Amino acid sequence: MNKKIWVYDTTLRDGAQGEGISFSASGKLAFVKKLDEFGIDYIEGGFAGSNQKDMDFFKIAQELELQHSRIVAFGSTRRANKNVKDDIFATSLIKAGTPTVTIFGKAWKLHVTDVLRTSVEENMAMISDTVAYLKDNDKEVFFDAEHFYDGYKDDPEFAMKALETAVAAGADACVLCDTNGGCLPHEIYEITKNVVEAIGCMVGIHTHNDGGLSVANTIESVRAGAVHVQGTMNGYGERTGNANLCTVLPLLELKSGYQCLPEGKMKELRDVSLYVDDLVNLRHDSKIPFVGKSAFAHKAGAHVNAVKKNPRTFEHIEPEMVGNERHILVSELSGGSNVLLKAIELGIGRKESEEGAKDILAALKDMESKGYSFESADASFKILIQKVLKKHKSFFGLEGFRVIIDKRNSGEFCVTQASVKVRVGDETEHTVAEGGGPVDALNLALRKALTRFYPSIKDVVLTDYRVRILDPEDATAATTQVIIESSDGKDTWGTVGVSENLVEASWEALVDSVEYKLFKDEQKKQLITNNE
Amino acid sequence: MNKKIWVYDTTLRDGAQGEGISFSASGKLAFVKKLDEFGIDYIEGGFAGSNQKDMDFFKIAQELELQHSRIVAFGSTRRANKNVKDDIFATSLIKAGTPTVTIFGKAWKLHVTDVLRTSVEENMAMISDTVAYLKDNDKEVFFDAEHFYDGYKDDPEFAMKALETAVAAGADACVLCDTNGGCLPHEIYEITKNVVEAIGCMVGIHTHNDGGLSVANTIESVRAGAVHVQGTMNGYGERTGNANLCTVLPLLELKSGYQCLPEGKMKELRDVSLYVDDLVNLRHDSKIPFVGKSAFAHKAGAHVNAVKKNPRTFEHIEPEMVGNERHILVSELSGGSNVLLKAIELGIGRKESEEGAKDILAALKDMESKGYSFESADASFKILIQKVLKKHKSFFGLEGFRVIIDKRNSGEFCVTQASVKVRVGDETEHTVAEGGGPVDALNLALRKALTRFYPSIKDVVLTDYRVRILDPEDATAATTQVIIESSDGKDTWGTVGVSENLVEASWEALVDSVEYKLFKDEQKKQLITNNE
Repeated sequence: MNKKIWVYDTTLRDGAQGEGISFSASGKLAFVKKLDEFGIDYIEGGFAGSNQKDMDFFKIAQELELQHSRIVAFGSTRRANKNVKDDIFATSLIKAGTPTVTIFGKAWKLHVTDVLRTSVEENMAMISDTVAYLKDNDKEVFFDAEHFYDGYKDDPEFAMKALETAVAAGADACVLCDTNGGCLPHEIYEITKNVVEAIGCMVGIHTHNDGGLSVANTIESVRAGAVHVQGTMNGYGERTGNANLCTVLPLLELKSGYQCLPEGKMKELRDVSLYVDDLVNLRHDSKIPFVGKSAFAHKAGAHVNAVKKNPRTFEHIEPEMVGNERHILVSELSGGSNVLLKAIELGIGRKESEEGAKDILAALKDMESKGYSFESADASFKILIQKVLKKHKSFFGLEGFRVIIDKRNSGEFCVTQASVKVRVGDETEHTVAEGGGPVDALNLALRKALTRFYPSIKDVVLTDYRVRILDPEDATAATTQVIIESSDGKDTWGTVGVSENLVEASWEALVDSVEYKLFKDEQKKQLITNNE
Repeated sequence: MNKKIWVYDTTLRDGAQGEGISFSASGKLAFVKKLDEFGIDYIEGGFAGSNQKDMDFFKIAQELELQHSRIVAFGSTRRANKNVKDDIFATSLIKAGTPTVTIFGKAWKLHVTDVLRTSVEENMAMISDTVAYLKDNDKEVFFDAEHFYDGYKDDPEFAMKALETAVAAGADACVLCDTNGGCLPHEIYEITKNVVEAIGCMVGIHTHNDGGLSVANTIESVRAGAVHVQGTMNGYGERTGNANLCTVLPLLELKSGYQCLPEGKMKELRDVSLYVDDLVNLRHDSKIPFVGKSAFAHKAGAHVNAVKKNPRTFEHIEPEMVGNERHILVSELSGGSNVLLKAIELGIGRKESEEGAKDILAALKDMESKGYSFESADASFKILIQKVLKKHKSFFGLEGFRVIIDKRNSGEFCVTQASVKVRVGDETEHTVAEGGGPVDALNLALRKALTRFYPSIKDVVLTDYRVRILDPEDATAATTQVIIESSDGKDTWGTVGVSENLVEASWEALVDSVEYKLFKDEQKKQLITNNE
């Protein structure tokens, strides 16, 4: 049995300090349920006493029937020169009603003198009183030693004294914090090792990413003996963020021989990571280690050949271990092996793919030379394959569109309107719409025109729109590439369009987006019919 | 004097493997010039022999008069069972004409048996022959030992043999690569230390970020004795990216006592990082360590108070050291000095600039919050300063414009026409033009309208046009930023426009471009008059 690491999530408290991170009340509950299912040991719910919302949350959280996780209330030591029983910070931690509480206290003398402006003795009394009071109230108590590493480098005796005070008062773990996020891995290793050898208490780690080292610092402290690991989902947090649990957990469990999650749960990592970004309405970072969409994406032809021969040659772990998958990117550097894998990945039979691969490759090269790129445009590539293999079905035809953009005087806004005329079977539909810009107006008019024939079009939203000028030296007369990302709530797909005219390039990507959605629906219907 | 680290940038080669990273030919040259000014020692220009584009680039790069950097051609060892002098990979490296070349070879036995499918002896001969051939041609030769760390863990004798072979053949440095990006910092440290002690040759490091550890692995290898550091700007690269030089350089220079850049250059780090993202049309990551906009942003009230009392309490370095600044939610007093410098740099007197700096700063912040950015738009910033200081002269007024984009049937091209009505003094001019797209048509119509009044407008050409979507989640209804670069053969200037409507944003940038040209001409005329 591997050595157990206690995993402590502080997304709802320290993570929520990050720019643009905010959870709704129901989002917090959804988050807790998800992390409980995932098997996280401790979930910090918020700052006790800091605001009513967090206190309300602790109350509701009591009623959740959690399978695995313990909810933690975060707070501080009592204030200077107060009786702990009358101090609002200390008493709020009891009122929160959680089985576990975490309090932070000062472990860097500079903070005692320059920020708190009190004496060393009073600082130690604040730690001691608060820990003892919480233990008297039957809490599991974690002591977060704020700025511990900077404090230790400055005055090791003072920093150790803060820990020893907490341990003597009954703390269940001392968590060493690199609050400013500026320490180096070898410093973290050495200092943690000294602490683990010196104090008779479980040691934890809490790092920030200001030096780009939060993950390395966390695993180095574990190597030095820390067994309690704090971090946030997707690395949310103030400034450059906290240690990202989605990176730390697989490093510890898959590469270092520790047990972080219940058996079999690591496979859900990517799903949990996506789910949390969704809760706070952030786009998932495709380049994030282990769980990003590109984390196992291969572009260069030589790499792709090697991966086909033996994935271990260019992959540090099997993507399935963290619920991710291998992606083969289509690009001008790639050869036939890329295209073949892609066609199979897209659901086309191996034999057919092999036979058509050469033609697909030729069409691809032709398109790429015109400025198309399919790395982010899977759906357009699929349509291209269908066209080459003569399997493409067109769902509508364009009779024409017109876009008019009008501006009167320097000060006034533009007015943009688009009209679209399409043909579906024997019928035509002519619609008009206004939009924020030419592409928005076209998109609205096209949807209006097609909804009568294909109601499911209503579910599609455009989730991203990117414009790239391909030969910028030609400036406004240059070739323009447009990438559109669409979603129907279940799937997400990318399409591409290229033209000297930006509006025409956008139209092309819009048409592919709609056609792919309708193809997908039809394929699903056939699957159901076949199964009946 | 601190120990020198040789900095080697591989953005144009390994970085360009990243999803969505692509440099235009002129972008590559701009990149090289910027990194040369910044003081990067080596700039890898591309893959020799892989495609004609890269070979063309090496040719043009020869003609650049660089102050500091050496251009490097990248390639591989000769293929198996070939004579090196007849091998296209080896000979292309000579044809590239660069003073320095880097070749990669296999240092993991698995790759020799499973990918190359040749013998160990032949692998060593490939390394030996190629290095010797390049040295015979008077090149500085770096040997990239691909998969070195995985290879060493698998079979240290084989991995060391590959290095020793390269050294014996005359290699100037052996670069140890963690190609799959999955190694841990303590492994990197120990293995690098063994290598440094064993071989009589400069040792380098090249890491990937698959475990989120590329930066930590780089600095650990330097601690173990590596003195040549490879990485990419902003961490571009395949999958999860390469080691980010914008993080590695300040860690080594500001925290570990090494010299990476010429004296005083570290202050330009943020500027260079922004510039490179701009070249490939990527949004700058606000959370990136050291150079991100949020890297020194303080949100929590207690932190802000503490930072005000003593910045060291919540900041690991001074933001100015890397050209960044502190951001505090309420009163953002910093940045004033930046604006002041900029105004003086743009030719406005010191006294006037000092008096107006506060108002300019307020206007700048307002514009930035609306989505404007002025890093590549000096001319628009100058016009903004003129407007704030009430020194702006308008050369023409817009009565209105109209753009019509028409498309008939799926197969046919769009026809785009723009009409523009402007007023100069008491006269109006109404013109119409056709263009490749809406912005091209508008540009042509505007020039047509103004040439009668301002003949010098004819000399202006637009040399770059970039579009960026600012809140892509809103897709086609999102805010759009347009950057235009213009040139009159003597000067080059950038302008910016922002609007929900792409055409309107482009118009705004076009107007600034024309106004700046006319202002410049007038200023020159005054200068001549004054001198007479």
